[in-house]
Amino acid sequence: MERPGGRTARVRASVLRAAGDALAERGFVNLDLGDLARRAEVGRTTVYRRWGTVTAVLTDLLLEMAVESVPRADTGSLEGDLRVNARLVVKTLTDQRQGPLFKAVLGAATSDDDAAAALTRFYLTRIREWAPCVTDAEARGEIPPGTDAEEVVRAVSAPLYYRFVTGTGELDDAVADRAVAAAVAAAKAGVFSRANGAR
Amino acid sequence: MERPGGRTARVRASVLRAAGDALAERGFVNLDLGDLARRAEVGRTTVYRRWGTVTAVLTDLLLEMAVESVPRADTGSLEGDLRVNARLVVKTLTDQRQGPLFKAVLGAATSDDDAAAALTRFYLTRIREWAPCVTDAEARGEIPPGTDAEEVVRAVSAPLYYRFVTGTGELDDAVADRAVAAAVAAAKAGVFSRANGAR
Repeated sequence: MERPGGRTARVRASVLRAAGDALAERGFVNLDLGDLARRAEVGRTTVYRRWGTVTAVLTDLLLEMAVESVPRADTGSLEGDLRVNARLVVKTLTDQRQGPLFKAVLGAATSDDDAAAALTRFYLTRIREWAPCVTDAEARGEIPPGTDAEEVVRAVSAPLYYRFVTGTGELDDAVADRAVAAAVAAAKAGVFSRANGAR
Repeated sequence: MERPGGRTARVRASVLRAAGDALAERGFVNLDLGDLARRAEVGRTTVYRRWGTVTAVLTDLLLEMAVESVPRADTGSLEGDLRVNARLVVKTLTDQRQGPLFKAVLGAATSDDDAAAALTRFYLTRIREWAPCVTDAEARGEIPPGTDAEEVVRAVSAPLYYRFVTGTGELDDAVADRAVAAAVAAAKAGVFSRANGAR
């Protein structure tokens, strides 16, 4: 009998860590199940039986990343909460391991439909985790009633990912804070009102 | 002697069209110079001699796309100009050929440094083409003096590319117009002021 957190969980943790390392180092195109088994010091048969494809490993990794990711902030102000999120995104995308890892995952999603679906689920989880910062701000009267909370959260991440993907600008805390200021100004102006067609 | 617009130009046009088709159909990973030569009905030797690598073809394609791309609008208002741009981005990213093509190019940039550099040059060209819409609006007094024009243009594209890359929302004219409204509201609030650290 196997207890929770036992061998199966350890094998998964090892393989997902190896997958993250391999993605960061060599990208999705070069991901190989046999290589992951070696890196994770896990039997090839186990890896092939449990995941079967590199896309399945990637999907599982994104699921784990969503579960492990930082919960929403609660600083008492919309700008404060969103700054925590924006700075976290910048920290992640500029991190020596996480930056290349995200680049690999975004790259995989451009060519593999299952990877794209897993990536979308990851971002929807993140967006929904942080949306209550916006609904709380609406309840406090900081922004107009009927603001689309998810759209505000997306608006904060968008300029950061745009820079990350197109390489058309630096990524630092000043950029993060400006992304927040822009999203908050637009939210206060009613741009993200659901009546305005936001969804 | 070869005249401009002669055989060399025709060969380049054929190969770049074939590259665009192949990228849209099968992505960057499956791009192959021999296949491009066949598709373009051009000799393999010519293609290998002129470009040498698939990345060189991609770089040339992005250069051509920048040259051929739509010039800035001049509607008389910032919101009007930026709407033309945002709707153009949506039209491109949702186009049956251009959408997969852009996905392939963005994917290539995640794994190939030369492709990434070419992609950055493409977007910088586009951003700089449209920036005068913002400086004109500043001259008309629509937005505060000292607004970072390129940052405003980026702010319009960012939510559209974020949706395109993460798959976390539709892309249509309503989304395009909302991206513009958000950028204009933030610009009017002084968020993109250079004094505010924009660059």
